[in-house]
Amino acid sequence: MATSFVLKGDIAFNKDANTIQTFPNGYLVCVDGICKGAFQALPEEFCNLPCYDYSGKLIVPGMTDLHVHAPQYTFRGIGMDLELLDWLTQYTFPEEAHYADLQYAKKAYRYFSDDLKRTFTTRAVVFATIHNESTIELMDQLEKTGVVTYVGRVNMDRNGDENLQEDSAGASLKGTMEWLKEINGRYQRTFPILTPRFIPSCSDELMRGLGEMAQEQGLRIQSHLSENRSEIAWVKELVPEADCYANAYEILGAMGEEERPSVFAHCVYSDEREMEILKKHHAFIAHCSDSNMNLSSGIAPVRKFLEQGISVGIGTDVAAGSSMNMVKEILNAIQASKMYYRLVDDTVKALTFEEAFYMATAGGGAYFGKVGTFLDGYEFDALVLDDSNMASMRAMSVRERVERMCYNDADLFILKKYVQGNLTFSRTE
Amino acid sequence: MATSFVLKGDIAFNKDANTIQTFPNGYLVCVDGICKGAFQALPEEFCNLPCYDYSGKLIVPGMTDLHVHAPQYTFRGIGMDLELLDWLTQYTFPEEAHYADLQYAKKAYRYFSDDLKRTFTTRAVVFATIHNESTIELMDQLEKTGVVTYVGRVNMDRNGDENLQEDSAGASLKGTMEWLKEINGRYQRTFPILTPRFIPSCSDELMRGLGEMAQEQGLRIQSHLSENRSEIAWVKELVPEADCYANAYEILGAMGEEERPSVFAHCVYSDEREMEILKKHHAFIAHCSDSNMNLSSGIAPVRKFLEQGISVGIGTDVAAGSSMNMVKEILNAIQASKMYYRLVDDTVKALTFEEAFYMATAGGGAYFGKVGTFLDGYEFDALVLDDSNMASMRAMSVRERVERMCYNDADLFILKKYVQGNLTFSRTE
Repeated sequence: MATSFVLKGDIAFNKDANTIQTFPNGYLVCVDGICKGAFQALPEEFCNLPCYDYSGKLIVPGMTDLHVHAPQYTFRGIGMDLELLDWLTQYTFPEEAHYADLQYAKKAYRYFSDDLKRTFTTRAVVFATIHNESTIELMDQLEKTGVVTYVGRVNMDRNGDENLQEDSAGASLKGTMEWLKEINGRYQRTFPILTPRFIPSCSDELMRGLGEMAQEQGLRIQSHLSENRSEIAWVKELVPEADCYANAYEILGAMGEEERPSVFAHCVYSDEREMEILKKHHAFIAHCSDSNMNLSSGIAPVRKFLEQGISVGIGTDVAAGSSMNMVKEILNAIQASKMYYRLVDDTVKALTFEEAFYMATAGGGAYFGKVGTFLDGYEFDALVLDDSNMASMRAMSVRERVERMCYNDADLFILKKYVQGNLTFSRTE
Repeated sequence: MATSFVLKGDIAFNKDANTIQTFPNGYLVCVDGICKGAFQALPEEFCNLPCYDYSGKLIVPGMTDLHVHAPQYTFRGIGMDLELLDWLTQYTFPEEAHYADLQYAKKAYRYFSDDLKRTFTTRAVVFATIHNESTIELMDQLEKTGVVTYVGRVNMDRNGDENLQEDSAGASLKGTMEWLKEINGRYQRTFPILTPRFIPSCSDELMRGLGEMAQEQGLRIQSHLSENRSEIAWVKELVPEADCYANAYEILGAMGEEERPSVFAHCVYSDEREMEILKKHHAFIAHCSDSNMNLSSGIAPVRKFLEQGISVGIGTDVAAGSSMNMVKEILNAIQASKMYYRLVDDTVKALTFEEAFYMATAGGGAYFGKVGTFLDGYEFDALVLDDSNMASMRAMSVRERVERMCYNDADLFILKKYVQGNLTFSRTE
């Protein structure tokens, strides 16, 4: 159901990681769901397309949330005085155990899906739980939001909660195969991704089995990496032959490869050796600075990842991150990088606004292919935003307005959200 | 025009810095603008008062913004890639120079005042500019918001902009006297506060003159302290006889005293010696962690201030802080303290939620007297908040809902704002 049209408005997008290109009162062209570029004057060839006039409104690329836990959404923003391992056992595991009940999942995932629809997010990489039925319910709901997602049925065969753990590696692998079979051919824009929770939750046998499954079926993998010091020390005990956390995934065959890149959340403590492994396997890092502050994890050295040429996007990491608001995460990522520069290492320069906006759009979007900017040939994911309630005493440039909306979105409204050229949300609907 | 009434709803407030007391479906009593306490069952003596039913809504104390620059409001959220001294000369001073024009000030301060009305803020300590007429315009507008404020006509006789500097110490002092004379008796809830911008902007003669004026007229002083390393080095050059930045204010007679306490914004780099001076003079610290991240200043050691018994509140510091949203500042202060703990000194424990909420309410409120909590005898500043759009899968305690609203206020609405018992804002108005 791809569509062709033109949007008129104040257009901004990253040409590259260091440059935001703007077209004040410009034209943005979508043909069959694909962006044909942004223009100051509409080229002759597109003059016959329907043109929707959003003069005075901002038009920016849709954003990619590279790491979010759907079942944690309804307890966001509470119990934030704990660190990772205690937070998992006290809040997260007991909550996720409820998703054994499909009726519970239906209701809770409805809150998540309904709210996701009205966020800046057009693409997301999502954790579900270990439960097949509930995960399929989530995927059914997400398919209808229009947002394009990878969704993972979680694997855990050790160190869980008494009500949140699978009986064995074999049972976990079998359950995963059944899930994949059941959803085969079911969705247009909702894709499965293998999801070992993290090394402490998965025996070597399970992790190896998932690595093999990924390779055989051409599936991707998502997981967590080097978030918290206690977690890292634990992984060292659990996989003593690994020289670092990423190497543990590597040894067990779960690091992915270029054609089916893995995404790893956090990487707060990833060093040179770990970066080398991430780069070698073409992995994406989901930078979750808000979560990393909330759980006192630390600050990931994002500048180093970018310098190494590692792909980095932004994850809200709900519920350790307290909201699905991607522009809040852009601001948080900038602030985190400034504190890393100031408090940890002043040779590591802070993120510029351009870089952070890039990470939230094209950086994470690259996980989905040609996504996250308005260059010719990219999938048409776009947000039409009304910032007219933010008063100023002078005419502001489009670039300034984009920066301002990320620093303060209190009076910013999403008017329209397009994903792959489809209108998926409209403020007046 | 004080009033007497009862509010019914889910009440929460700090009993002390470490305890949030809650009354689910409780009663909050206001008699002649003064809080008579919160109750689970309404005492007989108050049964004849009109009772407004906000069942299911949160009722929390109004918040105090201890440091905010009104003339910077309309350029919030842009140019945030600079540090303090460059940010001042490139953005702030040229903008503040516009306030020589009263018509400009009328319009710009209208944006500030109108937006302030609908924030969580019931008390504020405000910087204006060096211009008398514009400052009085701001005070006129603020008086009408119902918010209780201290407002400072700024003093600067050196190192300003060519269009933002007074001719001499004498001219600055004379202008200040004229301002004080003109506003004498003009307001009920808008108070003058002497406002030397900071040491680099004020000659010794000017600072001494302001210190004497404060003492003679029983006025308070607000200023900035130890925000940024380059600033601190500069102060060392400017006042070489001082052994620290606070000592420079002390030598020049501007540190204040118990009966007329000063408020100093930032204190990012305040050490033992500086804390000793702050404590000796009963000064308040306006903790502005959002601003301190944005300008890469660093993180103030708030825990140490609290341990020393120094009064600490929270300031949004617009426009180095990008919003006047106090609950966003509560979250930011907690995150900042977690990063201080994790990255700077792990013997300095992070702020608990209780402590941060206290700072934003009773901590800063104490600058205005008995303000910021619902204990008997406190001035009645209250917010009625609707968090019903934030779905949860289980009944949440009032304490949990208050934490959640500070971590994620996207779907939180201020229904009513009372200051000194007066209804100053109503969502339906």
